Amino acid sequence: MTSRDINLALIQSSCFKTAEENIEYISQQLLQAANNNADLVLLQELHNTPYFCIEENPSNFDLAETIPGTSTDIFSKLAKEHQLVIVASLFEKRASGLYHNTAVVFDKDGSIAGKYRKMHIPDDPGFYEKYYFTPGDLGFTPIQTSIGKLGVLICWDQWFPEAARLMTLAGADILLYPTAIGWDPEDTEQEQKQQLDAWITVQRSHAIANGIPVASCNRIGTESSENLSTQFWGNSFICGPQGELLAQASNTNNEIISATIQLEKTENIRRIWPYLRDRRIDAYSDITKRFLDEE
Amino acid sequence: MTSRDINLALIQSSCFKTAEENIEYISQQLLQAANNNADLVLLQELHNTPYFCIEENPSNFDLAETIPGTSTDIFSKLAKEHQLVIVASLFEKRASGLYHNTAVVFDKDGSIAGKYRKMHIPDDPGFYEKYYFTPGDLGFTPIQTSIGKLGVLICWDQWFPEAARLMTLAGADILLYPTAIGWDPEDTEQEQKQQLDAWITVQRSHAIANGIPVASCNRIGTESSENLSTQFWGNSFICGPQGELLAQASNTNNEIISATIQLEKTENIRRIWPYLRDRRIDAYSDITKRFLDEE
Repeated sequence: MTSRDINLALIQSSCFKTAEENIEYISQQLLQAANNNADLVLLQELHNTPYFCIEENPSNFDLAETIPGTSTDIFSKLAKEHQLVIVASLFEKRASGLYHNTAVVFDKDGSIAGKYRKMHIPDDPGFYEKYYFTPGDLGFTPIQTSIGKLGVLICWDQWFPEAARLMTLAGADILLYPTAIGWDPEDTEQEQKQQLDAWITVQRSHAIANGIPVASCNRIGTESSENLSTQFWGNSFICGPQGELLAQASNTNNEIISATIQLEKTENIRRIWPYLRDRRIDAYSDITKRFLDEE
Repeated sequence: MTSRDINLALIQSSCFKTAEENIEYISQQLLQAANNNADLVLLQELHNTPYFCIEENPSNFDLAETIPGTSTDIFSKLAKEHQLVIVASLFEKRASGLYHNTAVVFDKDGSIAGKYRKMHIPDDPGFYEKYYFTPGDLGFTPIQTSIGKLGVLICWDQWFPEAARLMTLAGADILLYPTAIGWDPEDTEQEQKQQLDAWITVQRSHAIANGIPVASCNRIGTESSENLSTQFWGNSFICGPQGELLAQASNTNNEIISATIQLEKTENIRRIWPYLRDRRIDAYSDITKRFLDEE
């Protein structure tokens, strides 16, 4: 192992009803990851609670918390105790009526290295995130830690090549996605398979197009509201800078998956596949347009 | 079949030594595609010749031709005769000392519907394209035809999510890549497998991220220069707007693959996966930067 290797672990699990139970579970898993020499642990999206965005309910705003706050104090302590960099995912209360879906990165000394507020906010039946979260205003800025620059993005961001590219251009060493995505149990098995395949494919493509390792940590389990049910599809994975799978979880089990990320592979792969050399930045300005409507 | 369906065929083959032989072969294949009710035929990159970019040789500029010119006259006639939209790929001589890698689209009436000059130009051992081709100056502009707006891109473009996105924003109905990519026979089987997988994955991801069908037509066969050999890996494929494979060729055979593209699927998939709704165009302007260097 060289100084540029990172032992990365992902904790995939179903969620308990309360933050106390979830944090207790995560604490146990962090200890296990630390015992297996992890440097960096990626948690799944909104790991402290069931996926409350399955419904629009004003009382769910009670689940939000300040950053720093109770949860960040706990994760700071755990990061320091286990000498881990931890990527946590919280429901942030910034002000009354102003909430974000926010990832917080803790360094090994327990300090908050930085935070990322989810930029792309989804909204479809069972995933009513536009009701809860104001789109992020911190941009696509990697977070510097003692082990490297982390390009933290969140769930829906994973479908947008622009987000991955901007993190890469800003010097990210790795892309990390806390996520909570699942199937509508009423979809056919073929539709479900195709959706999961699309989700893995598009994220592996960010690795390929940018020559950068990628990891995505998803939840499992079925969660329901009065009208809807979502079966979170797990399949958390880690891939290298040519999209090669290094580890992949099941769609049903609580598990930790891990891999050693060799950051020098990025240098090698970008020499052989030098996309950054050849980008036509003189011809990309329309990327900032919504659509190029016909006259 | 509705009016928005397109019968698409791809002609994958090894190349003969001369343009005459290659055009004769392509003519036979076009007849066969037409007999199978194709509307649209995608040819592979620089199909009239062996892949001359395997070496830097000034006499190879003799292979270039004007547009319009001898080859476009032939393909115009074939398009009209068979009532086909044809995407051809030519070595364009624009002026002395000014050459492009150019795709030309012929409509069913034999007219030239438009052309696309390859925007991203590769250069690595055996693929010395920067020596031959000036980067395109026509931008990422889809070509309107009687059967739809074709987002024609070429080979190396396929690794750049920006190109696929810009064609989509400009209203393309489908992305079409003539291509010529292969293995270095000295690479290990695992490296070769990983490269092919990355190539398919990144192009399927353009379909997924943009909700648009994609097709890529590659050559086969081993071609050699004095010092180098390339084994073109075939695997031409067609996928739908969620990246689902509709047809895929082998890596060794001359073959026509085909599929019916249902353009209404784009509407359906974009309703369920509405990425265009949620793009953060306010935060993408750094895409036009080369790199965001640290201060």
